[in-house]
Amino acid sequence: MQEAVTKHKSNQNSVCPVARSLDVVGEWWSLLIIRDAMLGVKRFSEFQRRLGMAKNILTVRLKQLVAHGILRQVPASDGSAYSEYELTEKGEELWPIMTALRQWGERYMFAPGEEHSVIVDKKHRKPPIAMTVQSVDGETLGPEDIDIIMPEESRTSRKGKSTYR
Amino acid sequence: MQEAVTKHKSNQNSVCPVARSLDVVGEWWSLLIIRDAMLGVKRFSEFQRRLGMAKNILTVRLKQLVAHGILRQVPASDGSAYSEYELTEKGEELWPIMTALRQWGERYMFAPGEEHSVIVDKKHRKPPIAMTVQSVDGETLGPEDIDIIMPEESRTSRKGKSTYR
Repeated sequence: MQEAVTKHKSNQNSVCPVARSLDVVGEWWSLLIIRDAMLGVKRFSEFQRRLGMAKNILTVRLKQLVAHGILRQVPASDGSAYSEYELTEKGEELWPIMTALRQWGERYMFAPGEEHSVIVDKKHRKPPIAMTVQSVDGETLGPEDIDIIMPEESRTSRKGKSTYR
Repeated sequence: MQEAVTKHKSNQNSVCPVARSLDVVGEWWSLLIIRDAMLGVKRFSEFQRRLGMAKNILTVRLKQLVAHGILRQVPASDGSAYSEYELTEKGEELWPIMTALRQWGERYMFAPGEEHSVIVDKKHRKPPIAMTVQSVDGETLGPEDIDIIMPEESRTSRKGKSTYR
């Protein structure tokens, strides 16, 4: 609770897009729910079964994702009384983040030879290529190739210590 | 505390690389610390000043990132008694995730015209291009273009309901 309060205060008005993103998808459960939604999970009961969360906790979390515009509730596709959850465009666009997390995890979070799930594209039956950060010319960029420009710097061209908060 | 326990139990042995990644970088503060480390922050006091975390909390968090092999402690570069933190290779390779989070945040977490920090590559002074998920042939892939293969399926070619846990 302490942390949730700290977080909310610190990132919501940050000028840093990373910090603001983490304000809405910066808890482990949020990206697990979104992962399952990307795989076609729609029903509360199926999220609950797959994620193994208590119903009251999952209820709160789904509500938060709806409040942030990442999921929306729609009538059930089979006409039953249940509602379903689906990703909004904002939610769907988390796909590159999801895939980058997957690729990093495949590389660093499994022992050699340890089995894990794999994604393949339907056409080639091969995993996507490793995601990279690229310049407008298509060169691969690392953190060392980047300058960060804070809003006040772009206005005044003033040099100095910047802070993110 | 309840959540931390649930999380640890549920993801540590998951066959899903997304879930395992979130086990170590799935709390908002972890990626904020890593963001600052990518920007060259090395000293405890500077992390503390930029992130505005209480010292005891930051201490625990830095220790966790060291324990996970994302940061390492090294002697201070100026020969002083302080130690410094730097990213390991495993930590540096979080860069595509960081940039994907930034690009999503730039697009969805700011009002039109609202200012935010920007990254530009040093050579072109332009932001990196939008990150995409690509097939071996360079085609852009969305979640709908992907099949997920679970370990038991790759062994037996059995069709059926898969679960991540």
